[in-house]
Amino acid sequence: MYELGVVYRTITRADRAATDQLARFGASTVHEAQGRVGLLKPYMRPIYAGARVSGTAVTVLMHPGDNWMLHVVAEQIKPGDIVVAALTSENTDGFFGDLLATSFRARGALGLVIDGGCRDVRDLTEMQFPVWSRAVSSKGTIKATLGSVNIPVVCAGALVTPGDAIVADDDGIVVVPAANARKVADAAAAREANEGEKRAKLAAGVLGLDMYKMREPLEKAGLRYVD
Amino acid sequence: MYELGVVYRTITRADRAATDQLARFGASTVHEAQGRVGLLKPYMRPIYAGARVSGTAVTVLMHPGDNWMLHVVAEQIKPGDIVVAALTSENTDGFFGDLLATSFRARGALGLVIDGGCRDVRDLTEMQFPVWSRAVSSKGTIKATLGSVNIPVVCAGALVTPGDAIVADDDGIVVVPAANARKVADAAAAREANEGEKRAKLAAGVLGLDMYKMREPLEKAGLRYVD
Amino acid sequence: MYELGVVYRTITRADRAATDQLARFGASTVHEAQGRVGLLKPYMRPIYAGARVSGTAVTVLMHPGDNWMLHVVAEQIKPGDIVVAALTSENTDGFFGDLLATSFRARGALGLVIDGGCRDVRDLTEMQFPVWSRAVSSKGTIKATLGSVNIPVVCAGALVTPGDAIVADDDGIVVVPAANARKVADAAAAREANEGEKRAKLAAGVLGLDMYKMREPLEKAGLRYVD
Amino acid sequence: MYELGVVYRTITRADRAATDQLARFGASTVHEAQGRVGLLKPYMRPIYAGARVSGTAVTVLMHPGDNWMLHVVAEQIKPGDIVVAALTSENTDGFFGDLLATSFRARGALGLVIDGGCRDVRDLTEMQFPVWSRAVSSKGTIKATLGSVNIPVVCAGALVTPGDAIVADDDGIVVVPAANARKVADAAAAREANEGEKRAKLAAGVLGLDMYKMREPLEKAGLRYVD
Amino acid sequence: MYELGVVYRTITRADRAATDQLARFGASTVHEAQGRVGLLKPYMRPIYAGARVSGTAVTVLMHPGDNWMLHVVAEQIKPGDIVVAALTSENTDGFFGDLLATSFRARGALGLVIDGGCRDVRDLTEMQFPVWSRAVSSKGTIKATLGSVNIPVVCAGALVTPGDAIVADDDGIVVVPAANARKVADAAAAREANEGEKRAKLAAGVLGLDMYKMREPLEKAGLRYVD
Amino acid sequence: MYELGVVYRTITRADRAATDQLARFGASTVHEAQGRVGLLKPYMRPIYAGARVSGTAVTVLMHPGDNWMLHVVAEQIKPGDIVVAALTSENTDGFFGDLLATSFRARGALGLVIDGGCRDVRDLTEMQFPVWSRAVSSKGTIKATLGSVNIPVVCAGALVTPGDAIVADDDGIVVVPAANARKVADAAAAREANEGEKRAKLAAGVLGLDMYKMREPLEKAGLRYVD
Repeated sequence: MYELGVVYRTITRADRAATDQLARFGASTVHEAQGRVGLLKPYMRPIYAGARVSGTAVTVLMHPGDNWMLHVVAEQIKPGDIVVAALTSENTDGFFGDLLATSFRARGALGLVIDGGCRDVRDLTEMQFPVWSRAVSSKGTIKATLGSVNIPVVCAGALVTPGDAIVADDDGIVVVPAANARKVADAAAAREANEGEKRAKLAAGVLGLDMYKMREPLEKAGLRYVD
Repeated sequence: MYELGVVYRTITRADRAATDQLARFGASTVHEAQGRVGLLKPYMRPIYAGARVSGTAVTVLMHPGDNWMLHVVAEQIKPGDIVVAALTSENTDGFFGDLLATSFRARGALGLVIDGGCRDVRDLTEMQFPVWSRAVSSKGTIKATLGSVNIPVVCAGALVTPGDAIVADDDGIVVVPAANARKVADAAAAREANEGEKRAKLAAGVLGLDMYKMREPLEKAGLRYVD
Repeated sequence: MYELGVVYRTITRADRAATDQLARFGASTVHEAQGRVGLLKPYMRPIYAGARVSGTAVTVLMHPGDNWMLHVVAEQIKPGDIVVAALTSENTDGFFGDLLATSFRARGALGLVIDGGCRDVRDLTEMQFPVWSRAVSSKGTIKATLGSVNIPVVCAGALVTPGDAIVADDDGIVVVPAANARKVADAAAAREANEGEKRAKLAAGVLGLDMYKMREPLEKAGLRYVD
Repeated sequence: MYELGVVYRTITRADRAATDQLARFGASTVHEAQGRVGLLKPYMRPIYAGARVSGTAVTVLMHPGDNWMLHVVAEQIKPGDIVVAALTSENTDGFFGDLLATSFRARGALGLVIDGGCRDVRDLTEMQFPVWSRAVSSKGTIKATLGSVNIPVVCAGALVTPGDAIVADDDGIVVVPAANARKVADAAAAREANEGEKRAKLAAGVLGLDMYKMREPLEKAGLRYVD
Repeated sequence: MYELGVVYRTITRADRAATDQLARFGASTVHEAQGRVGLLKPYMRPIYAGARVSGTAVTVLMHPGDNWMLHVVAEQIKPGDIVVAALTSENTDGFFGDLLATSFRARGALGLVIDGGCRDVRDLTEMQFPVWSRAVSSKGTIKATLGSVNIPVVCAGALVTPGDAIVADDDGIVVVPAANARKVADAAAAREANEGEKRAKLAAGVLGLDMYKMREPLEKAGLRYVD
Repeated sequence: MYELGVVYRTITRADRAATDQLARFGASTVHEAQGRVGLLKPYMRPIYAGARVSGTAVTVLMHPGDNWMLHVVAEQIKPGDIVVAALTSENTDGFFGDLLATSFRARGALGLVIDGGCRDVRDLTEMQFPVWSRAVSSKGTIKATLGSVNIPVVCAGALVTPGDAIVADDDGIVVVPAANARKVADAAAAREANEGEKRAKLAAGVLGLDMYKMREPLEKAGLRYVD
């Protein structure tokens, strides 16, 4: 349940080293490594291809068409953070553009995840300031209503608690609870080591059917082959 | 209300110099400069990234699955125009491809905004003929029913009157009434001058909270800080 | 109606030479050449721009959130095939990533068309393994339920029979029945020859109104011009 | 283009008698009678089945999440009006509930058409105050930003000018320009007279193929019958 | 792949007695009884609640905004048929209203399933002529282009072959291949007999966990209980 | 972040008396009373009109196409509970029908809120067992994968903690944190008392402009009246 009109200045951020490692593995591997949970909905898309970042979440809750709190959250950003912006109802207005990106970057933010619209896409691409949003829209916003900063928010269907680790790339956005960042980073590293070997085998023509020993369970499940 | 089966040959185009300037500012700045109105819905997307054009609208109304009127509108294009195509009901068929683009360009058109589908995306990208559309689709259309040319149309939720100035880029599409083009271009220029200074301050670490003097109104609105 | 739990090993593939030619014409020309039928719905999008392939369909039917059958279909791929994956209900999970792509490519597959989600977009782009999907999602899938391989499937609204020719590019995906591949390739070639001449005329400023002799039918239909 | 912050008190309403007649014919017949134009998009749905009303439009433009102007428009309602509410960007919040309905009804309004959300559906159904909306939502709105009253608005894709006749029922919502109300009512009456006879023939087993003399044009178009 | 411009007059209809029985079980039980396949997508909704019909499919393919072929299909209807209408691309126009319903009923049709829009909802409800559609829309259609009658069509994501059994109710629409109608009706009857007993046990407070003996497989799968 | 494969048997339910009172006020009043937060997204719709319930949440998390955990959650239901079901990715399959409803009711459940599909709508309506769902679908589900019971879940965009109070009606679904149930019920009661008086004034023709003293702030905001 959302508490409105409050800014929490003190949050417990996920371990920095572990968080930084997550970008190396990417969203899909991290998602798998923590048990296939914590993914934001796939309608969230990057404004340009190829970005891959990880960081700690500072969160902000706003109302539709009102970006006042983005200025408030800017002050709470610390280097290595990713801002995660949620709305109280669905809206595609352009809450964020190149001026706020300049400010966020000056504070050390690595990117923005926003369940609303974004604008100044060309400038943001030139700046290489990565944004994942539900829409791109020129429509500006007003500054009239209080939301909150650094409360737990639901963003694109996922619960994000301030300080959680966030990893985002072309595949999507995954949230890792702060307390699990180290464990998940290690699990992701283990998966990835593992993947190199698998890839080589598959490239050599070995079938997943054999590599994963699936023929027997498939037969048990009743799969029939017909010539 | 739409009048069907008519082509208006004489329209009053927005001031050329003012219209040409709008592309320099882009859709978001122009939208802001004219009071946050006149934006087409954000489901309209460019077929390739990076295009930014402005021009005067020639309008066309068509029925779903029927692009006959695109050939009719071609004759009405003058250099510096952007064709704005509306439909009588939602449809994603591919009304427009590289042959029509060749014709439109030969007549001087700078681009197309269509509340329907587009095809030949690869060729259009090579030609650098920019199109904003609601979909990409291979599905061709028939030539059986009359629509109209150069009547006021609702395109993607916005009213476009023939001769209006149109500015379109990665952020979206904005329509500026012909009579306001000069005023809006000036207001956009003023905004942009202004933005350079703001950007420099924000890049230097000044917060929007201070630059825009928001701390007092936020406090009045009841914002609480918790450590 | 779908038969579940069966793999057909023997299918009749469309003529190789004809199928290979289809990529040269692209989806839109092929769609037109076979009478404007056989198009998958336009929500199917390529994961990167610029790919254009044609091949013979091997089909697979899966349940939401379960990609077990992708490993089964891999064994049935022959060089020049494109895998066409359908689901029993709408789902955007990430059924396919770089490991399966490595395996598919090792078997000779030229691409994947999937009415579900795809992941590892960055790796797939680097590999230049083209995928057309309804979504991009990090969400992995389980391996628990049988579907079928090489049965006729409905994929994104189109019926695909194993062995059909598939052509896919930035405009979309078209299915050509195996028995028609040669005839359609010839019709597409005829269209394209034809298009070069038209393009030259249009580029020279000839209007479609005159080139296609539309003025008389438009007048008969009642089109009025107003100055 | 929208003018913000203004209330036009004087509008020219469509002829009362003609407007009142439109409800007798319903949205579909009226839409047909004026040449298949003027329909709001079909995502607009009545909050309960069976209502059928016609009236003159008083219009209001609002921002997402802000229903302040509904109180302003209430004062401009005259008996026989239908309020048509448009938004500057897509939003599903519950702008309207039973208190406003009580006020609107006291002023003589016959219904509401709103391109946003509605709430208190149970009470509105009991009151039999008909609303057509894009969503039902409990989410209340703020009162912070000015829109306008009685300017031309685009509502659900259709241009509505203050004073236009509106007819709405289970099939949808049609707008008739004030100047055409009489002509369209007459055309609708003619259509309906006509329909009774057709219905009787069809009920008796006469085919539309024969009644509308379609066999010859179908044959000319190339229709083949296969036994 | 669709063949255009053809009407097949002779089709093999599913067994009448078996087809008639399907309505007794309803769409969900029939869907389950034939192995959870053959369901049309859930965006298809009945225009009024409470209808439940089964019949044999006569199919029709149309283009967006063109209902000419509905008059052609009317002649091919035999008592006990349900018309299944597919489109070549997505469209919500109102293809069908009370006049066509009068004609269809006079020919013996039991209902309509259409992957497009429907109008005259109030009249159709009074007539109790059931329609399942993707939309309700006042927008009428033209009569200009040939489609086909009684070819296999993909309707709302499902393949429907002429003569197949169709069962439709508030839960949705299921297609049963003509050759399977008897077998599926028997399987559905068996399921339903079975369900009465289960319902009584569950009503008496027996848990599904025990009735279906799920506790052991859940434990094996690793389910943990925490107090 | 979701913990999978676990059932929490002990949860702290909201105060019974306070929870029971919430249904009297309905979702919209309760939403307003707790500060316009806690609303599930408006795509969630009741399967029949007119139901209004409140109860304490028992939660369940499932995977797409797999309803195994609904049998597990049944055992945890206590009289007065409402089951809140969330999914790990978007899916419209029919997870719930009349057999499960019979079981849930036997355990004392008052309703179901499910971010997936529901079936047997006719039976559920006859039973008057209310369900709010994102879809209606005949498609059954498998029983193969573990989710969890009585963990905090995100359902239709809102965080629901086991034991929270839920109120649902035609307007939507609101979640009230267990600790706030009494306070919110009191606030809702105060609002409602208040509303009766307002309604009477508005019905008598008093304008909201005057009753809420809006004329001055509107004037200050710059509203202009034009005759």
